[in-house]
Amino acid sequence: MSNTPQWVKDLVPSSPQGSELLQAERKGSNLSVKNLSNFLFTAETLIRRQEILKILQAEKVFDKSQNYFDGRVDRFKRALARSKRLRQLELEHKWTRQHLSDAADLISEPGPYGLHATMFLTTLRDQGTPEQHKLFLEPAQDYKYIGCYAQTELGHGSNVRGLETTATWNPEDRTFTLHSPHLTSSKWWIGSLGRTANYAVVMAQLIIGCKTYGPHPFVCQVRDLKTHQPLDGIYVGDIGPKFGYNTMDNGFLLFNKVKIPHVNLLARFSGVDPDTGAYIRPASASLIYGTLTWVRSTIVLQSGGVLARGVAIALRYTAVRRQFQDRDTPATTHGENQVLNYTMVQYRLLPLLAATFALHFTGKAMMNLYDVSQKTLRQNMSKLADKKRGVGPEESHPGTDLLADLHATSCGLKALASSTAAEGLEVTRRACGGHGYSSFAGIGSWYADYLPTPTWEGDNYMLTQQVARYLLKSARAVLNGNATNNDTSKFLRRFLEKQDTGAAHDILTVDSDIVAAFAWRAAYLTFEALKHRDDEKKSWNSLLVDFWRLSTAHSQYLVVKSFYEVLQSDSIEYELDQNTLDVLHKLFRLHALHTLEKEASEFFSSGAVTIRQIQLSRSKAVMQLLEEVRPHAIKLVDSWQFPDWQLDSSLGRYDGKVYEDMFHRASELNPLNCLTIDPYPESNIIIKKDDTEAFKSKL
Amino acid sequence: MSNTPQWVKDLVPSSPQGSELLQAERKGSNLSVKNLSNFLFTAETLIRRQEILKILQAEKVFDKSQNYFDGRVDRFKRALARSKRLRQLELEHKWTRQHLSDAADLISEPGPYGLHATMFLTTLRDQGTPEQHKLFLEPAQDYKYIGCYAQTELGHGSNVRGLETTATWNPEDRTFTLHSPHLTSSKWWIGSLGRTANYAVVMAQLIIGCKTYGPHPFVCQVRDLKTHQPLDGIYVGDIGPKFGYNTMDNGFLLFNKVKIPHVNLLARFSGVDPDTGAYIRPASASLIYGTLTWVRSTIVLQSGGVLARGVAIALRYTAVRRQFQDRDTPATTHGENQVLNYTMVQYRLLPLLAATFALHFTGKAMMNLYDVSQKTLRQNMSKLADKKRGVGPEESHPGTDLLADLHATSCGLKALASSTAAEGLEVTRRACGGHGYSSFAGIGSWYADYLPTPTWEGDNYMLTQQVARYLLKSARAVLNGNATNNDTSKFLRRFLEKQDTGAAHDILTVDSDIVAAFAWRAAYLTFEALKHRDDEKKSWNSLLVDFWRLSTAHSQYLVVKSFYEVLQSDSIEYELDQNTLDVLHKLFRLHALHTLEKEASEFFSSGAVTIRQIQLSRSKAVMQLLEEVRPHAIKLVDSWQFPDWQLDSSLGRYDGKVYEDMFHRASELNPLNCLTIDPYPESNIIIKKDDTEAFKSKL
Repeated sequence: MSNTPQWVKDLVPSSPQGSELLQAERKGSNLSVKNLSNFLFTAETLIRRQEILKILQAEKVFDKSQNYFDGRVDRFKRALARSKRLRQLELEHKWTRQHLSDAADLISEPGPYGLHATMFLTTLRDQGTPEQHKLFLEPAQDYKYIGCYAQTELGHGSNVRGLETTATWNPEDRTFTLHSPHLTSSKWWIGSLGRTANYAVVMAQLIIGCKTYGPHPFVCQVRDLKTHQPLDGIYVGDIGPKFGYNTMDNGFLLFNKVKIPHVNLLARFSGVDPDTGAYIRPASASLIYGTLTWVRSTIVLQSGGVLARGVAIALRYTAVRRQFQDRDTPATTHGENQVLNYTMVQYRLLPLLAATFALHFTGKAMMNLYDVSQKTLRQNMSKLADKKRGVGPEESHPGTDLLADLHATSCGLKALASSTAAEGLEVTRRACGGHGYSSFAGIGSWYADYLPTPTWEGDNYMLTQQVARYLLKSARAVLNGNATNNDTSKFLRRFLEKQDTGAAHDILTVDSDIVAAFAWRAAYLTFEALKHRDDEKKSWNSLLVDFWRLSTAHSQYLVVKSFYEVLQSDSIEYELDQNTLDVLHKLFRLHALHTLEKEASEFFSSGAVTIRQIQLSRSKAVMQLLEEVRPHAIKLVDSWQFPDWQLDSSLGRYDGKVYEDMFHRASELNPLNCLTIDPYPESNIIIKKDDTEAFKSKL
Repeated sequence: MSNTPQWVKDLVPSSPQGSELLQAERKGSNLSVKNLSNFLFTAETLIRRQEILKILQAEKVFDKSQNYFDGRVDRFKRALARSKRLRQLELEHKWTRQHLSDAADLISEPGPYGLHATMFLTTLRDQGTPEQHKLFLEPAQDYKYIGCYAQTELGHGSNVRGLETTATWNPEDRTFTLHSPHLTSSKWWIGSLGRTANYAVVMAQLIIGCKTYGPHPFVCQVRDLKTHQPLDGIYVGDIGPKFGYNTMDNGFLLFNKVKIPHVNLLARFSGVDPDTGAYIRPASASLIYGTLTWVRSTIVLQSGGVLARGVAIALRYTAVRRQFQDRDTPATTHGENQVLNYTMVQYRLLPLLAATFALHFTGKAMMNLYDVSQKTLRQNMSKLADKKRGVGPEESHPGTDLLADLHATSCGLKALASSTAAEGLEVTRRACGGHGYSSFAGIGSWYADYLPTPTWEGDNYMLTQQVARYLLKSARAVLNGNATNNDTSKFLRRFLEKQDTGAAHDILTVDSDIVAAFAWRAAYLTFEALKHRDDEKKSWNSLLVDFWRLSTAHSQYLVVKSFYEVLQSDSIEYELDQNTLDVLHKLFRLHALHTLEKEASEFFSSGAVTIRQIQLSRSKAVMQLLEEVRPHAIKLVDSWQFPDWQLDSSLGRYDGKVYEDMFHRASELNPLNCLTIDPYPESNIIIKKDDTEAFKSKL
């Protein structure tokens, strides 16, 4: 549609204009966006992001205007070109990992180097010996080898121990044979493998003699470094289109008895003695699994921002969109009502707005817990080493409790946070009405690309078993009087002590009582589950639904507590003005009371609150909070500081020019409009004229 | 990937094979699939579908193998070719509307003629005069004119009265001028308009003199019948890519003072006197809006089948997929557990399985209500005509109560049914784990194509206001003693009578008490809402969340009641064997008790049940029912009789050959694997070799 007629160009949206409405929203709130943004991210981070944005926007390869139109093959090509340029920019500007991660956030699409820079290099670094670092890590860091992490198989995802790919030790020539015995043993879903990688870390069952020693990581070249063709005995390719993530070439990989040298088994923690063929056992499993905990913590940290994109788009659009007059307003008042003024829309969006902040603070607390525990672990390890040398006091399990707590917390929060973000995004999309379905809304593709998160790094339902196991163990320790004095033991003990007298939480006026009510419910469900398992001897499988409920309850407690603790911190009054702090406090109460209302039946069957309290919370407190938060909605999403370039959304534009942008994209950027068809069914001609290629070449 | 090596072709999945597992599932249940299928659909329907399937499968144009790979432009071209062929087949085989609708179900993608055959022809037929039928309907029926229905605008969807497009009467030459005064007045989302239609029914504000008479339907040619280029003063095109529905060319349309003759205003119900310019008022609004009620009823009818596709895929796959050993099983037992044996998976999928049947029966009841009320309406209209001629008894509003009930029922059920189906599909997709994210799962695209349904034909949240309005009105009538004796009045009255003595529903053993508990909760919420509105004089806007809850409660009651009534019908024992009937009864209880548990807090704050009953229902009844339904799961989804060709899903294959099919699609049908790239970042070459076109031409 090259030649838009002048009369179309002259059209403007009917008044009031979107830009005026958003200006009025921003004027109507006394919140300080700047203070809040700095509090959330630090000024330094925001400046760095701005600089990176400027660099990216200046490069034609990062132009996003055809993203929503391109098919799979074109999207992949473009994504590869972007990945290459990003690596070049990294070298030019001496970017750190933080810079790269900011750039990836702004570009907002998975790229074909994604798994190289993260899982491949990390695994080589963490699990390789110095010799292997020289052999594999160094060329990989220079992108001479481009790699991926091949663990999941067609038939096995969650159950890593069930992997079918084998690596058999050959003592005669000191090699391993990688082999795929069944179709189901094909590696599958491996990011960056489909078309891009020439190397892979392959998880395979180590077999020495007739004995299997479980999955171990092997480095394996899969494509020729010059021709990029698969090597002999290797069948590799892309697994096909997906619901999202189509800029990534997730791949499959089969081995037909491929021999690799002894040095290709990553041997920092375990290995095979090349002389004797004896298996060398790992020292501690917990060190190996530290990476997964870190990945889960990152998911928690990101979840708030993931959801906030949808919330920002939906809130801005519902402030611009007007539909119907208010029913109780006299007919003399002209003009339609902003959609965001309807309580049904507020009820769907504002609790999600509150959740973005809750998740953000929880993510920061989670990362903090991770850092602290890593530090403690290192200290304890060196104490242990001292002790072995006869120095220092006796201590049996260095950091075990801490690790167990960290593991359970990261599992539970990963599940809750990624489910909340994924499901919340779909709510924000629908709250945009019909236009939410357009790609130009910018929510659909973002949602679709995020949807693997609830499944990977531990399926969200599977993970809840880890939390339950930890809580059951903690409860047993509390009952046996041998619990450590961590937060979990404390709230379990408090429940036992107060169980008879009752909870008496004043949730409607006392913030700390809200937190206590969440803890109470989690404790109640823990002891209920313990009774089923230990006293009634119920099977583990029959309790999975209870465990899932328990894990959710516990994680919701952690989120509410994290938000509460941020508001209680000493420094907050220096960092935030009182107006902004007041609004943040309302968001805390909205998040907590809305969650409480949603889960009402558990709250009162546990005795954490009374039915009357729930009813008051539902009909009074929550509705009141919606009204109080409403005037600040736009500024609150502004404080997330998403550039328009990042959101790539007509509906979420900062300036409110929603309709102009929708129209521009549909009429000026849409290749389909360069097809002239033959509409009649009796003719088998489909296309009369196809100008799509000419159109694309002009872009 | 043309040359799959022999060693890859020789691979089979590890044992047990998927086919063996599904065979065992089918052996393990005494349900009669044939009886149940005939009961659901009738034998005649199933035979007709088989015949149509055979015809479609024989035609190359309907081959689905590239559907998941094609980009937007190719998908649209293919869909247009299919639409054309479908029309040709319709003529060849003298297909009825029922045949066409079956064919569309089997093809399962929206086509560019979609809005022609439905909304365009229907509107011409229903709202045109005999003269207009000759002028527009006849050529349209012959596909000489290909049309669409242009109502929604860029700035207005739900609020039809707010449409901005104008049609101004010109007395001097007896024409109307169609005009788009603002950018927001652009028609938008109009199915079949983007590239295909040459005609449109345009809803525009009728203006005579200085007065506006609200939206009226005008027939307007938009493209040249020979060149297919837009006519003068018309700017038309496709609105761009969407989350789904990309085989349809939803379009935009702007008018620059386009003149159309007087006869182009569809004038069966209202119009303009060409001589005097006087407005001719419609006789009854209810006749005009009958179409929308019919469309909503159809959505309810289809919702069960829509959801059942996802449930069928997920249940078959989770019966084939095995992961982990049972935790409490002695380690000596070998082999992994079918995923469907985990209670957490059962808890997510089996209530949805039950919901498919509940929705199917509700849809049939809804269609029945529609047919009965149309009949009664016609009788009453003719009585009214008699009365005008002085025959028959006095009656003021013929069928008004019935229409109000029909309208409210169709609004509430449309909202509940389409939300249940849409959200349920996403649950089934996730229950398939990682593979659910692959396009080959067959759920993602089906879900994405279905997602407009919760928004169109009345946004699901908006519609709940209609239900609340009806229930409030009914409650007032009951309190005033002037209610008609329909089901709504009955359950409201029962609540008032028993309110003081209490409900005492025995939900755990008596089926009719379950239905009564749902009615009780709906009645309680109705009188609560009435109190807020009439006594406390709360604003309509402040009650929208209560209204939404009320509407949901009422619609859930209707669904449970519909399922119950099917089981109570006299004929059922002749149509179904006892085994099958027993399983159906379990599904009824599972659906009802699971819904009750999910909405627990409303059930006990209304006094419909006690906390103890909920706890027992949750921990005992529901878990027990899951165990009892589990053995019949596969046969229950078999009874929906989806051919593999329709599901187009690797995971949902009837024969259980899940992994073979996934692998075949990824390696043999995937054009991306015909690209050889240059992987190194320092090279700006992306593609070394591109064989995609050669690959496509070979297909």
